[in-house]
Amino acid sequence: MAGVRQQDKSMEVTKRLAEFVVNARYEDVPAAVRHEATRSLLNWLGCAVGGSRHETVDIALATFAPFSGPPRASVLGRGERLDAMHAALVNGISSHVFDFDDTHLKTVIHPSGPVASALLAFAEHSPVSGADLLHAFILGVEVECRIGRAVYPSHYDIGWHITGTAGVFGAAAAIGRVLGLHVQQMTWALGIAATQAAGLREMFGTMCKPFHPGRAAQNGMAAACLAAKGFTSSERSIEAPRGFAHVTATACDFDMITGGLGAHWEIASNTYKPFACGIVIHPTIDGCLQLRHEHNLRGDEIAGIALKVHPLVLELTGKKTPQVGLEGKFSVYHSAAVAIIHGEGGERVYSDACVREPRVVALRDRVTATVDPGVREDAARVTITLKDGRVIEKQVIHAIGSLDRPMSDGDLDVKLRGLATGILSEAEVAALIQICRSVGELRDAADIARAAVPAVRQGAER
Amino acid sequence: MAGVRQQDKSMEVTKRLAEFVVNARYEDVPAAVRHEATRSLLNWLGCAVGGSRHETVDIALATFAPFSGPPRASVLGRGERLDAMHAALVNGISSHVFDFDDTHLKTVIHPSGPVASALLAFAEHSPVSGADLLHAFILGVEVECRIGRAVYPSHYDIGWHITGTAGVFGAAAAIGRVLGLHVQQMTWALGIAATQAAGLREMFGTMCKPFHPGRAAQNGMAAACLAAKGFTSSERSIEAPRGFAHVTATACDFDMITGGLGAHWEIASNTYKPFACGIVIHPTIDGCLQLRHEHNLRGDEIAGIALKVHPLVLELTGKKTPQVGLEGKFSVYHSAAVAIIHGEGGERVYSDACVREPRVVALRDRVTATVDPGVREDAARVTITLKDGRVIEKQVIHAIGSLDRPMSDGDLDVKLRGLATGILSEAEVAALIQICRSVGELRDAADIARAAVPAVRQGAER
Repeated sequence: MAGVRQQDKSMEVTKRLAEFVVNARYEDVPAAVRHEATRSLLNWLGCAVGGSRHETVDIALATFAPFSGPPRASVLGRGERLDAMHAALVNGISSHVFDFDDTHLKTVIHPSGPVASALLAFAEHSPVSGADLLHAFILGVEVECRIGRAVYPSHYDIGWHITGTAGVFGAAAAIGRVLGLHVQQMTWALGIAATQAAGLREMFGTMCKPFHPGRAAQNGMAAACLAAKGFTSSERSIEAPRGFAHVTATACDFDMITGGLGAHWEIASNTYKPFACGIVIHPTIDGCLQLRHEHNLRGDEIAGIALKVHPLVLELTGKKTPQVGLEGKFSVYHSAAVAIIHGEGGERVYSDACVREPRVVALRDRVTATVDPGVREDAARVTITLKDGRVIEKQVIHAIGSLDRPMSDGDLDVKLRGLATGILSEAEVAALIQICRSVGELRDAADIARAAVPAVRQGAER
Repeated sequence: MAGVRQQDKSMEVTKRLAEFVVNARYEDVPAAVRHEATRSLLNWLGCAVGGSRHETVDIALATFAPFSGPPRASVLGRGERLDAMHAALVNGISSHVFDFDDTHLKTVIHPSGPVASALLAFAEHSPVSGADLLHAFILGVEVECRIGRAVYPSHYDIGWHITGTAGVFGAAAAIGRVLGLHVQQMTWALGIAATQAAGLREMFGTMCKPFHPGRAAQNGMAAACLAAKGFTSSERSIEAPRGFAHVTATACDFDMITGGLGAHWEIASNTYKPFACGIVIHPTIDGCLQLRHEHNLRGDEIAGIALKVHPLVLELTGKKTPQVGLEGKFSVYHSAAVAIIHGEGGERVYSDACVREPRVVALRDRVTATVDPGVREDAARVTITLKDGRVIEKQVIHAIGSLDRPMSDGDLDVKLRGLATGILSEAEVAALIQICRSVGELRDAADIARAAVPAVRQGAER
């Protein structure tokens, strides 16, 4: 009986999702959802530009450039150009290489990477208006997060990197939308995506992790382009007994895919990381930054910093004396010290130089952390004793960047600026932010991609 | 305890496989194994040339051509040229589009598609000798079939199309071998392959099925090329708790991967389909062809054909009156009739025209089939009553193409000739067979690819 009900509920899941994507109207998307999508896009852009000089991106570019088609699409933050499918791959890699992109907390999907990387590259291949791109982005994120919710958590627990496996559906839906696929084609596109869904959590900590959203973007684009020309697939690729959900998860709830389509939007609950390290350290950094700002601290005046933290903090990030930048990301001590001394938690305070900087090391040695099981995961208490004897304190209830206390638009601008520094000029950063914020009004969405490439490098390649 | 033993056994599976592929020596491969590999290659070539004009290939080409890099590699059987990764994709698709390629019966992997498609395309990108190509082909097939054996049958039962999921490892190993990767790089290549492993059985009956070996070839090549430049992955991608085997199968036996490496060869038990239809019909066709040959039958002299077959035959291929070519593949009646009238079971007797041909329809209506549970799957009894009253009979113990009665080299030549007719000229077919049979002596393995393209089309594209 349960089996029968499941069968009924599971009927035409893929087709209903395809119908939604094909028939959705931009004017039906609430303004707040469009605004959140613009914020997601801006956050993704900063991560992609900021990550663009990473060795992982260098290797991917060097490997695929000899196989690239006509160079119509930009590699963000760099001078090279590739065909749109390869550009989607490389931009998807750079946007996730710092693990600093957005997080859909219900599924732990990093939703923008697969979808935005595909769309922006495609917009340079074939003209797309800003509004169409933004709408397709919202729909792509909706598709990947709904499919993710249907199979989460068992799918993730088994070992699938859900950003890769669900992401390819999002990219296919988004590109399918801008291609104007009809329902039959969109159903095929989702199927061709399903049969390319891949990515293992075993790869965490290696270059393959950011490869996953890149490949999802590229393969989703391929799925939509194939379907547009009549390449067939199963029409029940998600819900069939040998379809994506049953093959890759031990439990699935298809209502998560088909329930309330158009009534609620997954991108509305997207979150952004303010700091370039493990999320469990964020409340501590938040508290230190607030105290620094309120008391104009610089570090020398501090006798000691005492942290009360959630148990996971010391389990995951208890490294007392990090020696290289990457280890700094796993040190709550280093993170507290740089928050006070440099006033930020961006990628550059996790460089090799910064973890060895004498005044950072000196302050780090004066940080103590104790676990308090009563402290929630997004909370922390920071107590600073000054050399003059005063004690100041900050209780962080919900860390900045959490769903309860999201980063402001201004915070996101600052984050992008920090990531793009040294890659784009100040004027270029300002222009990029302005263009991205007006995405809905752009006649040509490819303007965003062009604005994310430094003029110097563009010139160098011509 | 069982868990601990499993842990011990599973140590360094990926690395040991990588070491084997890196250190293997061509001169250690027995002559019989090399010969079987040549037969596999020849069978694959025929399928790829024969399938090259299929609509599935047309669509894939039209979709990917605008994204192709410099056209250095041939699309077999056609005039177009693509970059090597796209050529691997398209040739992999065409080689499986008729489902007429080779089968490794222990795993139901179609082993040549992913490996040969990658290798031959790569040989046009970067020079490879014939001996190196043949050796890499043997090693690639070894890798995919061993990984397949480790996870079969649960992996397949769950719904994975094992030709795609295991195939990508084979392609990565083969290309990694011709690239001369060292062990660390080969281990990464297998990992980058693992995290791209994909393909659902739900796609059977759609264009996505042949897409799987094509994508496996392309993605495996990418994995090896990335690893060559230092792109990192997990070094335990097969055996780790969140690695390929545990994530995609409910039971796995790593001894199947590491046991007897170099002592036995999986390609030695490869099989080839003599007829372009479901394997359960093969004994019937075999019997009909033997009787036709022995008694010079043409159809008009036959009053009736009575078949005694394994129960699966009527379950899977019991269609009495097929209306289109594809239905003919699911009709033991049609297959018996065309074997007598046209003397073959190749792709062309499963055309729309052939299933409607009046004398085929007339004879088909005089075929009866009864199930005999005592008949084995690769056996059948064919009894023909002639209009003059004589009764002739053939008992097929092991159908042609089975492991017990493999197709001869001559049979494989005839099969290739049948597939290539109408695409290559007679002289071109003869040259292709000759070049393929001498693969081990070729200075440049790309000669094979060039020989598989018709001169007329080559000229047309220039």
